[in-house]
Amino acid sequence: MSTPKTDALVIAGKAYDSRLLVGTGKYKDMEQTRAAIEASGAQIVTVAIRRTNIGQNAGEPNLLDVIPPSRYTILPNTAGCYTAEDAVRTCRLARELLDGHKLVKLEVLGDAKTLYPDVTATLEAAKTLVKDGFDVMVYCTDDPILCKRLEEIGCVSVMPLAAPIGSGLGIQNRYNILTIVENAKVPIIVDAGVGTASDAAIAMELGCDGVLMNTAIAEAKNPVLMASAMRHAIIGGREAFRAGRMPRRRFASASSPVDGLVG
Amino acid sequence: MSTPKTDALVIAGKAYDSRLLVGTGKYKDMEQTRAAIEASGAQIVTVAIRRTNIGQNAGEPNLLDVIPPSRYTILPNTAGCYTAEDAVRTCRLARELLDGHKLVKLEVLGDAKTLYPDVTATLEAAKTLVKDGFDVMVYCTDDPILCKRLEEIGCVSVMPLAAPIGSGLGIQNRYNILTIVENAKVPIIVDAGVGTASDAAIAMELGCDGVLMNTAIAEAKNPVLMASAMRHAIIGGREAFRAGRMPRRRFASASSPVDGLVG
Amino acid sequence: MSTPKTDALVIAGKAYDSRLLVGTGKYKDMEQTRAAIEASGAQIVTVAIRRTNIGQNAGEPNLLDVIPPSRYTILPNTAGCYTAEDAVRTCRLARELLDGHKLVKLEVLGDAKTLYPDVTATLEAAKTLVKDGFDVMVYCTDDPILCKRLEEIGCVSVMPLAAPIGSGLGIQNRYNILTIVENAKVPIIVDAGVGTASDAAIAMELGCDGVLMNTAIAEAKNPVLMASAMRHAIIGGREAFRAGRMPRRRFASASSPVDGLVG
Amino acid sequence: MSTPKTDALVIAGKAYDSRLLVGTGKYKDMEQTRAAIEASGAQIVTVAIRRTNIGQNAGEPNLLDVIPPSRYTILPNTAGCYTAEDAVRTCRLARELLDGHKLVKLEVLGDAKTLYPDVTATLEAAKTLVKDGFDVMVYCTDDPILCKRLEEIGCVSVMPLAAPIGSGLGIQNRYNILTIVENAKVPIIVDAGVGTASDAAIAMELGCDGVLMNTAIAEAKNPVLMASAMRHAIIGGREAFRAGRMPRRRFASASSPVDGLVG
Repeated sequence: MSTPKTDALVIAGKAYDSRLLVGTGKYKDMEQTRAAIEASGAQIVTVAIRRTNIGQNAGEPNLLDVIPPSRYTILPNTAGCYTAEDAVRTCRLARELLDGHKLVKLEVLGDAKTLYPDVTATLEAAKTLVKDGFDVMVYCTDDPILCKRLEEIGCVSVMPLAAPIGSGLGIQNRYNILTIVENAKVPIIVDAGVGTASDAAIAMELGCDGVLMNTAIAEAKNPVLMASAMRHAIIGGREAFRAGRMPRRRFASASSPVDGLVG
Repeated sequence: MSTPKTDALVIAGKAYDSRLLVGTGKYKDMEQTRAAIEASGAQIVTVAIRRTNIGQNAGEPNLLDVIPPSRYTILPNTAGCYTAEDAVRTCRLARELLDGHKLVKLEVLGDAKTLYPDVTATLEAAKTLVKDGFDVMVYCTDDPILCKRLEEIGCVSVMPLAAPIGSGLGIQNRYNILTIVENAKVPIIVDAGVGTASDAAIAMELGCDGVLMNTAIAEAKNPVLMASAMRHAIIGGREAFRAGRMPRRRFASASSPVDGLVG
Repeated sequence: MSTPKTDALVIAGKAYDSRLLVGTGKYKDMEQTRAAIEASGAQIVTVAIRRTNIGQNAGEPNLLDVIPPSRYTILPNTAGCYTAEDAVRTCRLARELLDGHKLVKLEVLGDAKTLYPDVTATLEAAKTLVKDGFDVMVYCTDDPILCKRLEEIGCVSVMPLAAPIGSGLGIQNRYNILTIVENAKVPIIVDAGVGTASDAAIAMELGCDGVLMNTAIAEAKNPVLMASAMRHAIIGGREAFRAGRMPRRRFASASSPVDGLVG
Repeated sequence: MSTPKTDALVIAGKAYDSRLLVGTGKYKDMEQTRAAIEASGAQIVTVAIRRTNIGQNAGEPNLLDVIPPSRYTILPNTAGCYTAEDAVRTCRLARELLDGHKLVKLEVLGDAKTLYPDVTATLEAAKTLVKDGFDVMVYCTDDPILCKRLEEIGCVSVMPLAAPIGSGLGIQNRYNILTIVENAKVPIIVDAGVGTASDAAIAMELGCDGVLMNTAIAEAKNPVLMASAMRHAIIGGREAFRAGRMPRRRFASASSPVDGLVG
């Protein structure tokens, strides 16, 4: 069922049918990468510029041969960067490699174990990049104040984590995500920590505009099938959000509200 | 994306592509009922014999005109029955109305407020109905011992509740559902309590064979769109289950298992 | 801080200050058993008649030497029984061993792996025992209908599980426990599945009258300290319940109710 | 039961028996404030300098008359400050009012609705205050990187929120709190969002060094009783942590680990 144009995801002025964004790391090989991304229906695909060949190394296989820019929106990301300076430099390199392409996904990590973002460096890099003409989609903590600041700085999309990168724990703080969504004027795309289909559906039901994931698909036993699962989960969650779910109640009777005292 | 025949849901010897079963109650009118069921992709549709006209009242609109047995598997249910005797009688009435059709959904309620099942009466009615040649799909509590007993009695499918009928709370006890699924040799179909798309996906990810719902669709602000949401959620959850999800971890590193001490 | 007499736990006409009931199994030795129970402040102590010597074997150490009936209310339980007949016989044996003592804890298990109760056998045994003059405290599933039936049969206390015996998972279905408590006229004592202090506190906050545990204390690295932890948790949870907690809200503002749509 | 000196909470070189810290706002009157704090057993008490009279207004009732510095450690906080500058100024005012007392609780809010912290301003104020000789206990988000930065800056204690101030939702992200505790070399004290006794116990079971709360006690129907509940819950949770809880399992059998695939 194709998405009606009225429900397109709009980022930096471009409309997308798919609300599932996927990464390109951790796959077995190029062919699995290609097949999984195709099964996912994703139109925006992230690439870790610092560790993926998209032309920097002429003699090696080029990811863009299996994920052609003619078919996908390539979203270079700054994975592996631990300082604002590194992140900015990496974005500029990406812009060159991709002929002036200015959509980037910014992530500045705080440490290598948790892979949690460094919010100070993230804010700094975001300001520099926005000023330098980039369309910045920014990975950050699920902190509602921080998310609003990044939006005010001029980021085109804010991407709070669900849980640590590669954890597969799913959204750990639903109320934070909800608050972020309620306050946002730019697309909110949950990034990092998704593990299975219901995690993605939950993000969409909270009102998120999309979900970005990599490990959940790449580390499934059958990545291509999981990619399809995620495609369905994103559509299902989005439609549930638009459909307006029934209220939660103790019992069928309308006069039995959920007891606000029970967590 | 059609379901490969190897993943069909088989109940009482018949194979179904769709793992979403839907009820026919609580809709605004016949047309909405029809449209929602169509959008859901469901092939098995439950009908509350005691309160829906499927021919008992000649002069009134007949649900089977919008949900024709030629296209759907009609699953009469015993909603509104509080005793084994009533439930058995209702099933026999349904068999007559539907020309010997023997697939029924048994539910015997314990009280009108919670709509929770009465397990003793349920066991009694199940025994009687199985002996009487019915193919019994039985609504029950999420009690693993009870579920196994119902299977041993000869029920063709066991249907533990996620939460009280009409509550929309989603699966309240995941470990019970998991235990039930692990121990079952017949299809396990979660029935009652689903509220939104992710609830359905979660049921499928736990290994359930299907999900039956009514209120979650009928009481959504846009039932037809919610029906489609559920269709996608069921497919997504099932594919995620078959795909084999990544493990849950504290962090990306493989040597950071989820702390078994944190709930 | 002693419990005001107005908040005593009353079971079968006897008042107790402590709302923590403990088992006597799984300890390292008699001395640890004694020390842990003392630290817990428990006044009611369960004994598995089928596997603990309370006089059946004259030559062996007698548990009642460390847990004297003069100081504790001994609550014989039917652990290890898989049929109603066995459970009834075990209770009668206990009554003899304890000079006509009629307070018993009934448990009839469905299988040895899950240790989940067999509800049919439990109902049968409960009826027999009540008729035979016992004061029956009965372990059962967290099924609100079943709990009410056991109360109507004449059990003096109903004891729904939090989670499987020995799992340490804590209350898996808070709404069921809440419903059971709301409907009950006899003390509701959560039994089985508690793992740590907060689990016990949660049970009390839901309005339960008490909590019975064994493994959570005996299998802690330091059982005596855990017993003390549980004593405090039970008191804390009970006082929080009586104190009437603040409502749950999105934010401090009174006009920000928890969004009933988020689970 | 007094706390053995080996388990004292040490902040800025001073040892405390009680791990419960309480606020002084939102009570009905001074007498209720006094009674609740006494029942809580708290030894550290926060005071919102900007809105509480501790001597600034000579003619008005002085909170220190009911909460004397001779008996309590007064912890001035910067509630109501939305900039680093305001927060620093408020701390300096507090130091004057309290004769050079240098222990302060820093909070810089991002907005008035969510009362969420502003992390950038918090970092800035923390640096200034530490440099100015204050012992800074700092309220912040549950961001593990941020918490470590604040510790490295020289704060004597880091205080991640459980949930928004005044929400009563309890810890929303247990894994974040756990990560923060694991990485910390200074006391971690959960601040904000606690609603009931079990919330406090959970914080202690995660390894937190203490919990600060205000609304949970002041807005309970019976604040004095809730204060006592919290006292017990903190002790219970701490003892459970020290005792080393049993592992969580599917069933009693040691070979039935919690399925890492189920959230």
